[in-house]
Amino acid sequence: MFSPKFDELVQALRTLPSVGPKSAQRMALNLVMKNKIQAEILANALHNAVNSIRSCQKCHSLTEQDVCDICLSIERDDGLMCVVESPADVMAIEQTGSFRGKYYVLGGHLSPLDGIGPDDIGIPALMARLRQGTVQEVILATNATVEGQATAHYLLEACKHLPVKLTRIAQGVPQGGELEYVDSHTLGQAMHHRLQFK
Amino acid sequence: MFSPKFDELVQALRTLPSVGPKSAQRMALNLVMKNKIQAEILANALHNAVNSIRSCQKCHSLTEQDVCDICLSIERDDGLMCVVESPADVMAIEQTGSFRGKYYVLGGHLSPLDGIGPDDIGIPALMARLRQGTVQEVILATNATVEGQATAHYLLEACKHLPVKLTRIAQGVPQGGELEYVDSHTLGQAMHHRLQFK
Ligand SMILES: [Zn+2]
Ligand SMILES: [Zn+2]
Repeated sequence: MFSPKFDELVQALRTLPSVGPKSAQRMALNLVMKNKIQAEILANALHNAVNSIRSCQKCHSLTEQDVCDICLSIERDDGLMCVVESPADVMAIEQTGSFRGKYYVLGGHLSPLDGIGPDDIGIPALMARLRQGTVQEVILATNATVEGQATAHYLLEACKHLPVKLTRIAQGVPQGGELEYVDSHTLGQAMHHRLQFK
Repeated sequence: MFSPKFDELVQALRTLPSVGPKSAQRMALNLVMKNKIQAEILANALHNAVNSIRSCQKCHSLTEQDVCDICLSIERDDGLMCVVESPADVMAIEQTGSFRGKYYVLGGHLSPLDGIGPDDIGIPALMARLRQGTVQEVILATNATVEGQATAHYLLEACKHLPVKLTRIAQGVPQGGELEYVDSHTLGQAMHHRLQFK
């Protein structure tokens, strides 16, 4: 509208989740007119973040190190592992303050129609880790969607012969809901009232 | 949460208008996990925009040049001037496609309690321009808020002795509404049915 660079900024802002054309224009105007310093801070933060943040080698959550702070923590229970679909779920569970174990991030869920099988979501590496014997309980905290449930059930089958307790977060997560959108209290309750699978 | 640079990105995203803590986290995750290239594009767009976009010397809208494309256009009517509070209003009116004149952006409205008087919103320069005699009609398109109305009335008084027609956008703008949030059709109607003041 005002200039090519303004339009480029609007287009770039539109790639953010749930930002429509009107919001993108409003953001661009606000940044250009009132928040030039904030705009530079945001530009630098974006640049730094995408160049420093990577996958934790152990749990596949996000970190700036090789292994994340949660994996490295000696204050958290190595015997308790929460398996989730994405780093967004780690964030959501951490914000409940109700979990003091470790995580394993699958990076997705089983989806045979899309050709996504166990190997694509790190299940062999998870199984190898469970076979080491440190983990006593695995909390299956995949989403309560059809795919999340199927993934949990696949893991239940895969762990049948391992000496680990398997639980599934249960109470409170609404049917069809995705963890990262559930409020902290409900999710905390779901962690607390998890049902034992095996 | 995941790392200092992730938190910095979340904080920077929160400075965008109507982005709360949850949205900022979602945006940051999305950028870091799925849209690294888009994140760099956004970072560059922000940097370029704040460093290139400035105020048009003639109308005070936004431009990358000294004088904006609308002011320079020979296809637009120099005799018709629309006075608005901000570049966001220029954008909103341009999007109606119902105006082919020029603009003058005040950059605010009169607000005696905040110490904002005529000099602070470029009214002397506007008067000087009107005295040159090119402009035949001034459309007062300040917001339909108390301050916007007061600013329009101040301009009406100030132009009393000048040989220009003064109109005020009227029909369709809801009471207390701000132009940049009004839908295009309503705003187009308001431009079309403007009432003559003088
Ligand atoms: Zn980790
Ligand atoms: Zn201009």
